[in-house]
Amino acid sequence: MTSDHESSQSDAVAVAAEQQAREADITRQVLDSLRDCADPRLQEVMRSLVSHLHSFVRDVRLTEEEWSRGIEFLTRAGHITDERRQEFILLSDVLGASMQTVAVNNQAYADATEATVFGPFFVENSPEIAAGEDISFGADGEPCWVEGTVTDTTGRPVPGARIEVWEADEDGFYDTQYGDDRIAARAHLFTDADGTYSFWGLTPTPYPIPHDGPVGNLLAATGRSPMRASHLHFMVGAPGLRTLVTHIFVKGDELLDKDAVFGVKESLVKDFLRQPGDGATPDGRDLGGRSWSRVRFDIVLAPDGT
Amino acid sequence: MTSDHESSQSDAVAVAAEQQAREADITRQVLDSLRDCADPRLQEVMRSLVSHLHSFVRDVRLTEEEWSRGIEFLTRAGHITDERRQEFILLSDVLGASMQTVAVNNQAYADATEATVFGPFFVENSPEIAAGEDISFGADGEPCWVEGTVTDTTGRPVPGARIEVWEADEDGFYDTQYGDDRIAARAHLFTDADGTYSFWGLTPTPYPIPHDGPVGNLLAATGRSPMRASHLHFMVGAPGLRTLVTHIFVKGDELLDKDAVFGVKESLVKDFLRQPGDGATPDGRDLGGRSWSRVRFDIVLAPDGT
Repeated sequence: MTSDHESSQSDAVAVAAEQQAREADITRQVLDSLRDCADPRLQEVMRSLVSHLHSFVRDVRLTEEEWSRGIEFLTRAGHITDERRQEFILLSDVLGASMQTVAVNNQAYADATEATVFGPFFVENSPEIAAGEDISFGADGEPCWVEGTVTDTTGRPVPGARIEVWEADEDGFYDTQYGDDRIAARAHLFTDADGTYSFWGLTPTPYPIPHDGPVGNLLAATGRSPMRASHLHFMVGAPGLRTLVTHIFVKGDELLDKDAVFGVKESLVKDFLRQPGDGATPDGRDLGGRSWSRVRFDIVLAPDGT
Repeated sequence: MTSDHESSQSDAVAVAAEQQAREADITRQVLDSLRDCADPRLQEVMRSLVSHLHSFVRDVRLTEEEWSRGIEFLTRAGHITDERRQEFILLSDVLGASMQTVAVNNQAYADATEATVFGPFFVENSPEIAAGEDISFGADGEPCWVEGTVTDTTGRPVPGARIEVWEADEDGFYDTQYGDDRIAARAHLFTDADGTYSFWGLTPTPYPIPHDGPVGNLLAATGRSPMRASHLHFMVGAPGLRTLVTHIFVKGDELLDKDAVFGVKESLVKDFLRQPGDGATPDGRDLGGRSWSRVRFDIVLAPDGT
């Protein structure tokens, strides 16, 4: 019996070695097939993609049924995607691939402000406002005074920096989601000669990403929430400096550690100080006794090309 | 100067460490977000998918423009996919992910015949033929006599094994690609009491996978051909044995080492012996002086559940 046992053990080892060789050989063939790719960067990207994709299939021992479900998932994502809905960006977002790409493309540099996801709601040609004016243009929400400076990493103020800001209203919708042509809760302004800026916006409120499609199903199946932590979008640019795409988040928001797209950075969480309706506003604006909030966001831009 | 230089070096090290920490932290957050997933297998699959996806983005330092091109690629693939066209399966095929999944799900077992890709052209309810009959049903191509045995891995013949066979015609099209309701070049038959089978098919010819969509563009951009090596599909099943999905390929075919979907296994390459039109056929069939070919394919099935 002992020799039978040993022989069956060595058979099993031989089969396992043969199986491993077969799996490795497929990956080798696919990598070899890329040898005539004329674009070296495309070749590099595809080689890495193939290697990781194959490792994934092998590591989890993907079943054929799971493979089919993956194909069906991508098919549904493709069919729900149109000019107004981009399910593949949502997928990249909820898998953290968007934030990982942002991180790779916005390298840490001295004390430069951190970047976060761009999101799908930016619109070109937003209205220009002067310092201290209101970006809401009729969008509902609690007024919020936003102020700060733009400097470079040596601490020098940056005059004339262009600041784009945009956000959801208190119902959690951006203007573009209403399907009419309204432009609201978005604007751009420029820093003053001393690098300062200020405007009235809305105190940010949380909202869900679109979750009535396959990505929403995936979130539900994995026990995750579709909610984004409350935030206000910024895009800040000036000649010679790296354009910053970021948000600020609201300190104390219970969604900070479960943002659906992993956009939160501790350095971007700010104190939105709640103000009773009976006090004076920074610019003397009469808010008719409504409560408001105020926040300070000092922005540091890295040099261009970093 | 030396101390300045040292300090700037140590700054650079600190920034690199900070950058690495930021990238790792995003992956950690995404993995953490899966902690409440109620389905342990889904959790395992998603954790591996996220880890590999993030490693890919980091390894290639994916640019934001490349990320956008990836999103656009998936969007185009989704939009070209319909009931007749499945671009995501093609994508999985040309990246070798389909073959890797086949390999994982058809473990090497003794001398069991190797599996390969199923492909999109199988149809349920093919016509049944008796031993030695013709599967072509009017499809054009050179006649090919196919014969062999079905045994288990102990060498015992398997009587009554169901063999499904299907293939393209000499123009490279399957019946389902013509858009009419023809059924041709496909059938099923059963092995005899001694485990043997035989039928007339068509000598396989090469054909391209559909390459007028994004997957075709990817193949062109990476210097690859959309051609599949000539092959004949088999699906073989019998009670108590693992169902085998495979092809046989034509020895000498110049596409054997560049099959678009990496389906070729050396053990599946068979000698299709060319026969002049003036000789006798195995079953005495009169081919009107046409040339024909013959091939032998002995099939070994692994036990079920292996």
